[in-house]
Amino acid sequence: MTATVNPAPPELDVPSGRPATVPTPEPGDARLRRFSLNQKTIDRWSVRDAVAGCVAAGVQAIGLWREPVQEYGVKASAELVADAGLRVSSLCRGGFLTSPDPGAWQHALDDNRRAIDEAAELGTDCLVLVVGGLPPGSRDLPAARARVAEAIGVLVPYALERNVRLALEPMHPIYTADRGVLSTLGEALDLAERFPVEAVGVVADSFHTWWDPQLAVQIARAGERIASVQLADWITPLPPDALLSRGMLGDGHIDLRGFVALTDAAGHTGDIEIEIFNADVWAADGTRTLDTLRRRWIEHVI
Amino acid sequence: MTATVNPAPPELDVPSGRPATVPTPEPGDARLRRFSLNQKTIDRWSVRDAVAGCVAAGVQAIGLWREPVQEYGVKASAELVADAGLRVSSLCRGGFLTSPDPGAWQHALDDNRRAIDEAAELGTDCLVLVVGGLPPGSRDLPAARARVAEAIGVLVPYALERNVRLALEPMHPIYTADRGVLSTLGEALDLAERFPVEAVGVVADSFHTWWDPQLAVQIARAGERIASVQLADWITPLPPDALLSRGMLGDGHIDLRGFVALTDAAGHTGDIEIEIFNADVWAADGTRTLDTLRRRWIEHVI
Repeated sequence: MTATVNPAPPELDVPSGRPATVPTPEPGDARLRRFSLNQKTIDRWSVRDAVAGCVAAGVQAIGLWREPVQEYGVKASAELVADAGLRVSSLCRGGFLTSPDPGAWQHALDDNRRAIDEAAELGTDCLVLVVGGLPPGSRDLPAARARVAEAIGVLVPYALERNVRLALEPMHPIYTADRGVLSTLGEALDLAERFPVEAVGVVADSFHTWWDPQLAVQIARAGERIASVQLADWITPLPPDALLSRGMLGDGHIDLRGFVALTDAAGHTGDIEIEIFNADVWAADGTRTLDTLRRRWIEHVI
Repeated sequence: MTATVNPAPPELDVPSGRPATVPTPEPGDARLRRFSLNQKTIDRWSVRDAVAGCVAAGVQAIGLWREPVQEYGVKASAELVADAGLRVSSLCRGGFLTSPDPGAWQHALDDNRRAIDEAAELGTDCLVLVVGGLPPGSRDLPAARARVAEAIGVLVPYALERNVRLALEPMHPIYTADRGVLSTLGEALDLAERFPVEAVGVVADSFHTWWDPQLAVQIARAGERIASVQLADWITPLPPDALLSRGMLGDGHIDLRGFVALTDAAGHTGDIEIEIFNADVWAADGTRTLDTLRRRWIEHVI
């Protein structure tokens, strides 16, 4: 009788449950150099969990969110990521600048100034802005867009003084009404180009922009205006909650490698964040999610 | 004791259940002149029901769908609408032209030729085309778009001979992956303009295009290319089934009157179809839906 060695069962991908088709890249793997975990992708992780998870996985950059950062403390978060040797690829998010009420609009501007300060303290030059949807009861989309433009003009000097760039995020038109009235890269660039390149950039997010017939043209146009690149897939059938409809890389319809090739060709050399809002991903174990992400990164991104 | 006359309770709008705020326009009301009922809005109605419903309500135009028309018979449907004195504002729909399989693509072309014949027999010069989504397993959006363009080129001579115009429907980017890879009016016009104006036009649908920062520019550009104007509202929260996410006029965020003003200014003088895919609307009694539509038309459209 000969002893047989059973091979380890393959890892299972999250959230599909399908067996992994490539090995999980180990810490130190040079292919992970530009991989950044946006912490919202593993929504259950605190800042401490996310930093520890990134270090254990060999991930060198992280996109932080204001709410968990405030929970842990801005200064404490800044020290934690610095001590771990992580780059902060962005802070999410400022914005929500469409209120027609002068008091509410000023309040939003003040909150954005605080977000700029937090970004500076965390050591990132990129503050992602989700600009806000239509005000309640309003059908005046041009007016909402005009208020966003006015607010950016107010915030630019403050951002410039702190070396933080405002990263306008054009959002998928599924969110125009209730989340972000900037709907295309072209529109975001029209606005960004009114200001110095070091003050206002754009986010190139695959989920939000992949459908755009002008995608290649506008990413090429963006060039140095690209302040952040974010990835999620578009899956069908679309999950019932529109806000949580983003898919795991490779589970959907987007040519992610082609998307990154466009941003690379436009001159982007920085981190590439993976940002997935999805109830099934959020329900999974964080370490398994990060393992899947690193595999999918190899298969579908670089 | 004095006898009191109780006023009739107000009508209730569909599907909100809220009391109507304007009287239902009566048959003969000149304001209904351009009102067209797309029969899909009252999905439970057969061609016979829809024609009878329009006549009873004083509606003078109808948008027909191939499946119920085939069920009733194309010739019989043509006679029914003609005898009722109704205009057929469009036939929905041809399209689905993105298959990379040559046999399937030819099969789709043949089906579109039949749809052109049906449109001609029904007495409409407008065949709405939903061009189709990405083929299964494909992430090549430019290739799918190229196949659509090639198919239109093949169909144009056939359509011209029968005096039927192919109406390219740019669809909301929520449907790019699985339904329609033409995503903006600008993209649809880029394609349409390769062909004679009498052969290829575009559909200006409020639900699909309202979010577009280029909306006013592209509708003005469209001019005589506008083959059909369709209305539905964008409601939030978005219903869980993306396909059935269109809202009753006035229940959502779209400036419908402003939208129609743009198409009018571009020279469109024809019928304006109301086309709503929504499970709650479909669950309602058809006559009550048509009553609500006529009231909302007065309140929100003209």
